Amino acid sequence: MAAEAEQGFRPLDEASLVAYIKATPALASRLGGALDSITIREVGDGNLNFVYIVLSDAGAIVVKQALPYVRLVGDSWPMTRERAYFEASALREHGRLCPDHVPEVFHFDRAMSLIGMRYIEPPHIILRKGLVAGVVYPLLADHMSDYMARTLFFTSMIYNTTTDHKKGVAQYCANVEMCRLTEQVVFSDPYRVAKFNRWTSPYLDKDAEAIREDDALKLEVAELKSMFIERAQALIHGDLHTSSIMVAPNSTQVIDSEFAFYGPMGFDIGAFLGNLILAYFAQDGHADQANDRKAYKRWILKTVEESWKLFYKKFVELWNKHKDGNGEAYLPDIFNNSDLLSLAQKKYMTKLFHDSLGFGAAKMIRRIVGIAHVEDFESIKDANKRALCERAALNCAKTILKGRRQFENIEQVVVYIQSFDQD
Amino acid sequence: MAAEAEQGFRPLDEASLVAYIKATPALASRLGGALDSITIREVGDGNLNFVYIVLSDAGAIVVKQALPYVRLVGDSWPMTRERAYFEASALREHGRLCPDHVPEVFHFDRAMSLIGMRYIEPPHIILRKGLVAGVVYPLLADHMSDYMARTLFFTSMIYNTTTDHKKGVAQYCANVEMCRLTEQVVFSDPYRVAKFNRWTSPYLDKDAEAIREDDALKLEVAELKSMFIERAQALIHGDLHTSSIMVAPNSTQVIDSEFAFYGPMGFDIGAFLGNLILAYFAQDGHADQANDRKAYKRWILKTVEESWKLFYKKFVELWNKHKDGNGEAYLPDIFNNSDLLSLAQKKYMTKLFHDSLGFGAAKMIRRIVGIAHVEDFESIKDANKRALCERAALNCAKTILKGRRQFENIEQVVVYIQSFDQD
Repeated sequence: MAAEAEQGFRPLDEASLVAYIKATPALASRLGGALDSITIREVGDGNLNFVYIVLSDAGAIVVKQALPYVRLVGDSWPMTRERAYFEASALREHGRLCPDHVPEVFHFDRAMSLIGMRYIEPPHIILRKGLVAGVVYPLLADHMSDYMARTLFFTSMIYNTTTDHKKGVAQYCANVEMCRLTEQVVFSDPYRVAKFNRWTSPYLDKDAEAIREDDALKLEVAELKSMFIERAQALIHGDLHTSSIMVAPNSTQVIDSEFAFYGPMGFDIGAFLGNLILAYFAQDGHADQANDRKAYKRWILKTVEESWKLFYKKFVELWNKHKDGNGEAYLPDIFNNSDLLSLAQKKYMTKLFHDSLGFGAAKMIRRIVGIAHVEDFESIKDANKRALCERAALNCAKTILKGRRQFENIEQVVVYIQSFDQD
Repeated sequence: MAAEAEQGFRPLDEASLVAYIKATPALASRLGGALDSITIREVGDGNLNFVYIVLSDAGAIVVKQALPYVRLVGDSWPMTRERAYFEASALREHGRLCPDHVPEVFHFDRAMSLIGMRYIEPPHIILRKGLVAGVVYPLLADHMSDYMARTLFFTSMIYNTTTDHKKGVAQYCANVEMCRLTEQVVFSDPYRVAKFNRWTSPYLDKDAEAIREDDALKLEVAELKSMFIERAQALIHGDLHTSSIMVAPNSTQVIDSEFAFYGPMGFDIGAFLGNLILAYFAQDGHADQANDRKAYKRWILKTVEESWKLFYKKFVELWNKHKDGNGEAYLPDIFNNSDLLSLAQKKYMTKLFHDSLGFGAAKMIRRIVGIAHVEDFESIKDANKRALCERAALNCAKTILKGRRQFENIEQVVVYIQSFDQD
């Protein structure tokens, strides 16, 4: 941290941020120069960073600053500020590939670990909050399948030369501290006694213990963990849960890519689907006389199903469209007939489907017995009721993770999820 | 190449090499200062580089210089000289981990792409030549299993922290030109019509065509190709065939690591085993009245079997010895009982076994229908006899590659190989 400090880092507050913006044309210009009318609101409800919404009479921006520790835990858990560099890099790269669903970066200051980016205005809210409130987003599956298909396809070996791919891999290898954080909180801590683990106690004490003693589960999780570190399949977001997505009725925006690196595609797809499934299991805790949430649960499962099916369709469409391009994984003079290419695509997508189920299930488990929980469950006040929802999700996730290779399609997964319903 | 030329590169010949050595104390001192008695012999019989043996009355060294093209093809196939940097780096790293089987690097000059290293003296010869001559090396399996177990284990996530691992991965990403060469000659060209492909024609014309039309084979090879590029499992040698190994009755030395990068372990193990199996199938072409080579064939298969079994044993022993170390793939408080750790090891080694069979088979195929052939077969003068040997090897390799996951142990593989014998 000493070296970083020397580079001119200082944490901003609302007052010093105003001065910073005034001195930074790339930001000031976005506020129309009307800098005396600025209002600033800190909204960083995530686990890591400080996030400011800056409004003027003439414009609005978001300024995000990384501090050298994990905000959720405090300065006892140091965390490199360089994550801001990878967040800005991935926002720009994914934004180039999928501008409809990624906010533009206006300014990046590496020394200050500070990103200035497009303000995602109301009525956008964090998707997770919409899911807790029971709001239907008819375009969510379409938008997220777009985002995932484009960002993953265009950063994979199917589309790129080996040279470009290895260059990207090398660049993001340096985001290792964020990978280590994921390793710890997703793949390690839930499966051992760990300081920051928590769960709805005492209700789930036995469930958490069972996770720590499930040898078959640990073997599968070890395989996923190795894949997470070793397999540079595409430039993934790395933290694509439902709080990294902002939604309005006609818009879906993906934010918070500081965990980005070249990893397995299934980790992104699984994060999104797994967090939708968590939302599904939380609905019983939000049901009341006015709304039994049954229709909403059907919508969530339909969104799970459609997201995968549309992703599959779009990814394969991109593959077909670019099959004669520069990609070196499937050369056109080897995959020289459409039947063979179809077989290759089916094999690839089946493997990716099983990876996604595995990673998705691992992400569900860690949100119930690990350090960082989700509002979907946390907002269920009645602990007994919450524990019942969480247990159903946990049992579903455990069995999907262990048996993921037996699922042939997403419809089977959706039927299986429903079998864990409490009614 | 312009940038490289500016850095002071000049190709040496025997005369200028003498001047270079005189001006380089790290090399001159190894020759005992007796520089007037120097004799130099160029012995680079490989496909890529110039290699000089430098002898004086008082000592001996090897000097290897990379030129900016593939020696086998000529300057129509450019190839970065930076491969010398990765060769020197990998020699040093693997040498640190396994000094008994890797020559020391005395001097590395990056601008000149020049490595000065230990002379591996007579009676050492290239292993492939020994296999052609029918020489038994009783310690080969023991030595090579040592080399593979130590270099692969100690550069894997089982032993290292994620931080160290990613640092290594990033460094060797820049050796991408060598990875691309392997991609092309091992995983691409044999499966399409390609300029430099050749085979024993006309005998194998139909066999080569069958390879290019075998859809099931192409699907499996595509999976291996993706794993080769995407999976950073350990710092592998990258070209571990029997011409990268020098042997004497009591010594085994691994050289020529310019293809080194973080890739799948099975690529090294497969290269070694696959080239032994090629030697096996070539024996019928070397049999004569004086020596039917039957006993030698049994020794080769015994060496295949022992190499894998000893590798397995030593790798797992290293794992057990270091299970409480810094490695982050299998944490001791998760793999907290010996039964569970055993299961994890069995699962890991089974996957590695199947990877090794797949890569080994792919390396066999490319040596029969691709650009670079092996002396094992090339030295069989009678083309018809050579083609019969090559066809048996090709059919064996194709079916092992496609059915590799059905083999439960190396004994089954050895029995299967024998089923392709011509008698």
